[in-house]
Amino acid sequence: MTATTHDRLDLAQVDELAAQLRVDSIRSSTSAGSGHPTSSLSAADLLATLMSRHLRYDWDHPDAPGNDHLVLSKGHASPLLYSAYKAAGVIDDAELMQGYRRVDQRLEGHPTPVLPWVDVATGSLGQGLPNAVGIALAGARLEHAPYRVWVLTGDSELAEGSMWEALATASHYGLTGLITLVDVNRLGQRGETALGHDMDTYAARVEAFGAEAVIIDGHDIAQIDEALARADGPLDRPLVILARTVKGKGVPEVEDQDGWHGKPLPEQTATSAIAALGGERSLQVRGPMPPAAEPVEHAPRGAVELPAFTVGEEIATRKAYGPALTALADADPRVVALDGEVSNSSGVADFVEAHPERFFEMFIAEQQMVAAATGLATRGYLAYASTFAAFLTRAADFLRMAPISRVDLRLVGSHAGVEIGADGPSQMGLEDLAMLTATQGSTVLYPSDATAAAKLVVEMADVDGVSYLRTTRGGYPVLYGADETFPVGGSKTLRRSDQDAVTLIGAGVTLHEALAAADALAEDGIHARVIDAYSIKPIDAETLREAAAATGGRVVVAEDHHAEGGLGAAVLAALAKEPITDLYLQHLAVDGVPGSGTSRELLSWAGIDAAHIAEAARRALEG
Amino acid sequence: MTATTHDRLDLAQVDELAAQLRVDSIRSSTSAGSGHPTSSLSAADLLATLMSRHLRYDWDHPDAPGNDHLVLSKGHASPLLYSAYKAAGVIDDAELMQGYRRVDQRLEGHPTPVLPWVDVATGSLGQGLPNAVGIALAGARLEHAPYRVWVLTGDSELAEGSMWEALATASHYGLTGLITLVDVNRLGQRGETALGHDMDTYAARVEAFGAEAVIIDGHDIAQIDEALARADGPLDRPLVILARTVKGKGVPEVEDQDGWHGKPLPEQTATSAIAALGGERSLQVRGPMPPAAEPVEHAPRGAVELPAFTVGEEIATRKAYGPALTALADADPRVVALDGEVSNSSGVADFVEAHPERFFEMFIAEQQMVAAATGLATRGYLAYASTFAAFLTRAADFLRMAPISRVDLRLVGSHAGVEIGADGPSQMGLEDLAMLTATQGSTVLYPSDATAAAKLVVEMADVDGVSYLRTTRGGYPVLYGADETFPVGGSKTLRRSDQDAVTLIGAGVTLHEALAAADALAEDGIHARVIDAYSIKPIDAETLREAAAATGGRVVVAEDHHAEGGLGAAVLAALAKEPITDLYLQHLAVDGVPGSGTSRELLSWAGIDAAHIAEAARRALEG
Repeated sequence: MTATTHDRLDLAQVDELAAQLRVDSIRSSTSAGSGHPTSSLSAADLLATLMSRHLRYDWDHPDAPGNDHLVLSKGHASPLLYSAYKAAGVIDDAELMQGYRRVDQRLEGHPTPVLPWVDVATGSLGQGLPNAVGIALAGARLEHAPYRVWVLTGDSELAEGSMWEALATASHYGLTGLITLVDVNRLGQRGETALGHDMDTYAARVEAFGAEAVIIDGHDIAQIDEALARADGPLDRPLVILARTVKGKGVPEVEDQDGWHGKPLPEQTATSAIAALGGERSLQVRGPMPPAAEPVEHAPRGAVELPAFTVGEEIATRKAYGPALTALADADPRVVALDGEVSNSSGVADFVEAHPERFFEMFIAEQQMVAAATGLATRGYLAYASTFAAFLTRAADFLRMAPISRVDLRLVGSHAGVEIGADGPSQMGLEDLAMLTATQGSTVLYPSDATAAAKLVVEMADVDGVSYLRTTRGGYPVLYGADETFPVGGSKTLRRSDQDAVTLIGAGVTLHEALAAADALAEDGIHARVIDAYSIKPIDAETLREAAAATGGRVVVAEDHHAEGGLGAAVLAALAKEPITDLYLQHLAVDGVPGSGTSRELLSWAGIDAAHIAEAARRALEG
Repeated sequence: MTATTHDRLDLAQVDELAAQLRVDSIRSSTSAGSGHPTSSLSAADLLATLMSRHLRYDWDHPDAPGNDHLVLSKGHASPLLYSAYKAAGVIDDAELMQGYRRVDQRLEGHPTPVLPWVDVATGSLGQGLPNAVGIALAGARLEHAPYRVWVLTGDSELAEGSMWEALATASHYGLTGLITLVDVNRLGQRGETALGHDMDTYAARVEAFGAEAVIIDGHDIAQIDEALARADGPLDRPLVILARTVKGKGVPEVEDQDGWHGKPLPEQTATSAIAALGGERSLQVRGPMPPAAEPVEHAPRGAVELPAFTVGEEIATRKAYGPALTALADADPRVVALDGEVSNSSGVADFVEAHPERFFEMFIAEQQMVAAATGLATRGYLAYASTFAAFLTRAADFLRMAPISRVDLRLVGSHAGVEIGADGPSQMGLEDLAMLTATQGSTVLYPSDATAAAKLVVEMADVDGVSYLRTTRGGYPVLYGADETFPVGGSKTLRRSDQDAVTLIGAGVTLHEALAAADALAEDGIHARVIDAYSIKPIDAETLREAAAATGGRVVVAEDHHAEGGLGAAVLAALAKEPITDLYLQHLAVDGVPGSGTSRELLSWAGIDAAHIAEAARRALEG
C-alpha cells in the first residue's frame, strides 16, 4: 500500500484505480454515516478511465488555462469525485475520511467550488450539463482555448427538460469540446427510471438533439477508453457516451438493487465489500497534462461612455439597457450577454448588433440561459442575461444554485408588473422581486428612469453574487441628469421639505406615480417626501428611517409586484432593524389576478397609481 | 355575409372558415392595437380544420364530460382562438372587436379560464403541453373518459425543456388521447428559431421521446385533415403533428418576414389584407358532437381517520404526510398524488402503496409534476404534488401561472432548510417560502409536529388556490394531541403567562428551538411567550399583535429560511397592518451559504437554534 504516481495508466492498471475509487467511496460514506456509495460505484470505472488516461489536467495548477473541466452533474456521487481527488494526490486520506460531509469542511455532501477543482456546484439534478454548456461556450467562442469539458451525469436527471435544453444548445453552437458521460445505472432514488436500461431510446434522443451517441458497457475499461478517446476528435457534434452500468457495482449485496440510494453501507457490509474489492490502496494517478495555453488577458476596463438621456424625455428603462450594456462592453472586453429570444423586447438588441461575437442567443430556454451565464461567469466573463421578468422565474432553481456556485450573475428582467398592460397576467412579473431578494447574497435594482437604468447596468459589473435589474415596458420621463450617480444601496430623495407630513416610496413605475401623488397632495397643502428606492436590496435604510422619523412614521410604499418579497417588505425590514416607536405604513401592492387593459387602467385596478397613493397618504395623515 | 351553421364542414368549405379566422384575427388585433396576428395566421388552417371536423365539442355545454379539450399552448395566438369562438357562435363579433385585450373584458391578451372553453391559462410558452398531459392523464387513468386533448403549440416553445418532459411523460403513460399540433412557422419573436423549418429534426426528437410524428404542410387542408383523422386511432403512442407553416400566411406583406411578431397590422394593411382574403364572413361552424359520457360522480368525503401520534414521540413531519394523505384519500376519491421521484423521502410512499392507481410518478421533472397537477386539478381532482422544498423552485414559472389558471394546487416540500444537515446547500430549501408566499392567493403552512402536519394535509383539501405544506427532514417530538385543530390562518400559543417579557415565534424546526430557548430563559426567571406560527400565509395577525403588545413589543422570530419572504417577513407585515408604536424585532434567519454538518451544527451556524433565540431575547430585553 505504498503510494505510486503514474502518468497515464496502462489500460490494465485502470481496474486497480477503479477498485481504489470504489473502496474509498465506500469508506468515506460509511465513515460519514451518509452519502451515496451505490451511485458512486456505478460510475467508478468511467471516472477511473477518464482521470487516468483522458482528462488533461494539471492538478498542481487548477487554474491552468488549458486544463480540461470535469463537472459532476450527478453531484450526489461526491464520494467518487473526492476519491478521485485523493487518487490525484490533491487531498489526503485523512481529509477524505474525516472531512467528508462534516461541518466546516470542504468535502461537502455535494461538490461546490469551495474546492479548487470544482467549477460549479451540483446537487440539483439537471444543472451540471447546462452549466457545462456555458463553460464550453466560453472555451470555444471567447477564450479559443483547447480545453474540453467533461460532464458525468446520471440517467435519472435526463428526465429534467433542462438536460435537453443543454444538448440542443450545445449542438446549435457546435460544442465539440463538450463530452457527456451518462452513467445509466437504471435505478433512481425510489426505483427504476422511466427508461431503465433502454440504451437505444437514450441514444435516439441524444442523436435527435444533435449530439453523437455512443453506447458502451460502463464497466468494460477497454470500451470506456475507446469511447473517451473519441474526444480527441475529429468530432462534428457534441459527444454523449451512454454507459450501461450497474448501481452498486462491485458490492454484490447491493448491486442493481432498490432501496440503496443515498445510503452508506453498514460497517460490516463495508468491511467485507472492501476486502472483496482487494482492500485499501494508495495509488496516486495523474493523467495527461493539458496542452500549453496562454491565459486570456483582458485589458482593464476603460472609461464607459454612457448614452445621455434628456431630462423629461419619455423613454422606457428597458430601452436604456442595450445602449448601456454596449457602452460598458466597448470599455470592458469581459462583458457578454445572453437573451431568451426576446432581444427586441428586453432591450439588448443594440448590444447584439454592436458585439455579436459576445452575444449568445439562448432561444426560449431560460434555464439554459441562466446556466450558460453561470458557466461563462466561472471563466471570468461578466455575463448579463435578459428576458421578461416573468420568465426569469423559469430559472428559479438555477438562480438558487448560483450563490452555491459562488458565481457573479447579472440578470435583467423587463416588462415588470401590471404596467405592461394588454398582454395580460401571463407576461407580468409580479413575483420576480420575491425570487431575487430571497436569493442568497443578491442585489436587486429597480430604476425609475433611463439614466438610472444605464448607470446601474455599469454598477452591476462590479457587484458580487447575483444581481438583478428590473425594467419597465412603457416610456416614462427621464428624471435624472447625466451627472447623477446611483450607488448600489443608495436612494434618491426627490421631494423634501421641512414640513413633510408623509413619506412616499416608489421604484420603477410607482416612483412616477408617487411624484404625481405628491403633486396632488401639494395642491391641498400637504407636503410629501418622495423617495426613489432604486436599490431594493441592499436598501438605503438610513434614508428611509430618517424620512419615516421626519414624517411622523407615516409611510406609503407602492409597488408593481405582489405584497410579499418586494419593495414594501424591504422597506419594512429595513425600518424594523431598529426599534420602531412610530410607524403607520400603507403598503400598496398588486393583489388579485389582473386582466388585460392599458397601463393606466391596470395601475388603477391594482391600487398603485397616483390617486391611490395620494389617498393612502391622506389615510395615513388621518390615521 | 349571413350566418350559417354547419355541422362538420366539407373539406372544400374549410378554406372559407380558415379565411374567416384570418380576417377576424387581423380585425381583432388591429382594433385592439396590440396582439399577435402573424402567429395566428400561420395556424389558421390547422385550427379551422380541427374545429370544424375533428374537435368533438358541445359548445353549448363546455363542461360536457365527453368534450374534447383544446389547449392553446402558443397562447399569444389568442386572436385565432377567439375568432374560432366567434365561428362557433359562443362569442359575437362585437365582443371580439370591442372586448379583445380591453380592461374588464374576458378576451384577454392570452387566454385564461375566465372563458368557459379554456382549461388552463397559457402565455408562458412551454406550459400548455405539460398541462395538457395532466388533463389527458385524468381522462385516461381516472375518468376513463372518451375525450381527446388537442394542443396547438408553436415551434419556438419547443426550445423549452418542459415540452420534452411533457412528451416523455405522455409516452411513459401511453396517452394516446393527446394530440399535439405544432405550428412550425420558423420565426420566433426576434428571428428564426434554432431549427427553422428542419421538420425532420423535429420529427426525430418527437419520435425519440416516444410519440408518433407526422409531418404535413400546415396550409394544405387535405393533409391537415388526414393527419387529424389519425386521432380516431388506433394509436399506440401520443400523436404529434408537425405542420410546416408560414408566419403571417395569407397576408403577403408580412408572410415569412422578420419584425412582425406581436404587432397588429396597421389599419391600411389590415384593410387591404382583409379584402384580399375575401372580406369579412359570418360562418358559424360547429364540428362533431362528443360521444355520450357520464360525468364522474365522486362520493362526498367521508370521515377522515387520521393516524394518531403520541405526544413526545419523535417523528418527522414529512413522515406524517403519506399516512395523512392516505387517510384523506380513503375518505375522498378525488385525492390524487404526484411526486418527483423522491417518494421514499418526501413521505408520500405510504400513499403510493395504498392507492397506486391514484399516484403519478413524475420522475425528476418538477415542471411536469406541477403542470400535471394543474391539469388534474382542472378535472376536479385534489392533486397533491411533493418533492424536496428546494426542487419545487424548478417549477416556479408553473406555480406563477397556477393562479392565472384558477386551479387549486396542493404542494408539499420536504427537507426544508439547513436542518437537513449533511447533504449540503444544494438540497436545502431556503427560498421556497419566498416563492410560495409571493404566489397570488396562496396559502403557506409549516407545521412543527406530526399531528399538525397530518391535520393540515386535510385542511389543504378545502383550500382554494395554491397551498403549500413545508415539512422537515429530522424527527422532532410530537407536541399536540389528536384532538387539537389547526385551522388555516391560526396559530398555537404554547407558552403564555401574565409575566411574559418577550415573544418567541417559530415554525417547523425553529418552534422546537424556541421552546428550548424559553426553557433556558425561564431558568433565569424570564418568561417568554412562544407561538407556533404554523400558518405563515394567512398568518394569525391578531394573536401576534396581542403577544407583541403584551411583551412590550419585544419579538424574536426565528426561521430556517432566508430573511426575505418567509416567516419573519410575514410576522412583520402582519404587525404593520396596524400602526406600530412599540416594536423591537429580532429576526433570526439564514444568511450565507451553508455547508454540510449535522442539523444541530447547522442550526447553530445559521444562528437560529435555541441558544441564539435565547440570546436574541436577552438582547431585546436589554434593548
